Amino acid sequence: MPEPLFEFLCRMGDNTLVLGQRVSEWCGHAPVLEEDIALANTALDLIGQTQMWLGLAGEVEGKGRSADDLAMLRDVWDFRNVLLVEQPNGDFGQTLMRQFLFDAWHLAMLTGLKDSANPRVAEIAAKAVKEVAYHVERSSGTVIGLGDGTSESHARMQAALDLLWPYAGEMFVADTVDTAMAEAGISPDLADLRTAFDVHVQRVLGEATLTVPESDFAHKGGKTGFRHSEHLGHMLTQMQWLQRAYPGATW
Amino acid sequence: MPEPLFEFLCRMGDNTLVLGQRVSEWCGHAPVLEEDIALANTALDLIGQTQMWLGLAGEVEGKGRSADDLAMLRDVWDFRNVLLVEQPNGDFGQTLMRQFLFDAWHLAMLTGLKDSANPRVAEIAAKAVKEVAYHVERSSGTVIGLGDGTSESHARMQAALDLLWPYAGEMFVADTVDTAMAEAGISPDLADLRTAFDVHVQRVLGEATLTVPESDFAHKGGKTGFRHSEHLGHMLTQMQWLQRAYPGATW
Repeated sequence: MPEPLFEFLCRMGDNTLVLGQRVSEWCGHAPVLEEDIALANTALDLIGQTQMWLGLAGEVEGKGRSADDLAMLRDVWDFRNVLLVEQPNGDFGQTLMRQFLFDAWHLAMLTGLKDSANPRVAEIAAKAVKEVAYHVERSSGTVIGLGDGTSESHARMQAALDLLWPYAGEMFVADTVDTAMAEAGISPDLADLRTAFDVHVQRVLGEATLTVPESDFAHKGGKTGFRHSEHLGHMLTQMQWLQRAYPGATW
Repeated sequence: MPEPLFEFLCRMGDNTLVLGQRVSEWCGHAPVLEEDIALANTALDLIGQTQMWLGLAGEVEGKGRSADDLAMLRDVWDFRNVLLVEQPNGDFGQTLMRQFLFDAWHLAMLTGLKDSANPRVAEIAAKAVKEVAYHVERSSGTVIGLGDGTSESHARMQAALDLLWPYAGEMFVADTVDTAMAEAGISPDLADLRTAFDVHVQRVLGEATLTVPESDFAHKGGKTGFRHSEHLGHMLTQMQWLQRAYPGATW
């Protein structure tokens, strides 16, 4: 059985890595200049957080792997991100809905991690939560603006919510790693996060005039690494190609 | 200056490799089952020809590189295919128009190469031309069927021709490699190929009720390796990933 703290840190870092890579795909393609820059900044924040989480994961593992090694040289079955963040960008609304659902979880998680019994984890969370407070403010505002916008933007946001809602549940399903982390006081209890998440999400989606799907069905397998969607492998071929083709390349 | 015969063989093999990879992307996605199987068979033929051309290229080079090494371990700037074959699949009509323009050149080229002064080249061409005679028969028939079909299919085929025609010219522009090959009696004269190509293409496009664009502008830079389109690099990340991630992997 792998060291739970290492697994936990990979989950945090893989979430931010995979979502950062996804969001960066918008660079130069977003509908207006301000959104383009905002999305690129969000991607940069997430990649910066990845550096911290995976850097610490490598230290904890003690095998000499750097954050770059973990990001660029693991294959798909070793990734521990939730399925939500590896889903394709779709249209702008789908990207923002994915961002909003993740941000709402991320803010609650980092807020809890600020009080972690592990001082290194608490330190990273304290840095990251400042950025994520801005992310969630922005994605909440955009979801409201587009949901409660034109009939076209409303329909697109509802379609995005219907598509992505089944990927929200995985963030709150506790397994042995989560339980071990919570019992050690390293991470908050996922059931408590769900409450904070639901309050926040219901408020925003209500203002956005969007309807939360009734089904609680949740796709699972991402954060345990049991089964990723087909999209992750295709992303990794792009993301890892340079280090795969030119091992150890620096600049 | 690289050995002209090596360059020439890479051009032949890279054309079939890149087009074979592109066509294989349709596997499981073509509009009807028979087309799906026909496209997959075409892709297989092209990859089989690649094995012969790049295998001989590796022998001629004399550095111990196999066909697999050349296919999987060169970077984009070392590829020598024409720009036409690396263009994206687009819709089914665009794929078939690309195939038709390439097939018409390919048949004329291989017919000439059957009489090559180099017996190894002649031998490969004699094998390949039998497959390509079938490819061109099939793509010609489909271009006619779709061009002279519904108003929708006609419009799509005309759009495909307008898009791809500027990529046809590169196949007939002779550089020092082509000239050296022709002077050595290894390959036919490209000006003669153009004549055969034009007769064939005009006949088929006429039956297809399609209008050949008037401009003779030709994108160049693929077969010389001077400048590939952005599409090739993205294709290579997918195609080469396994050998990049697991060097020397076999099965």
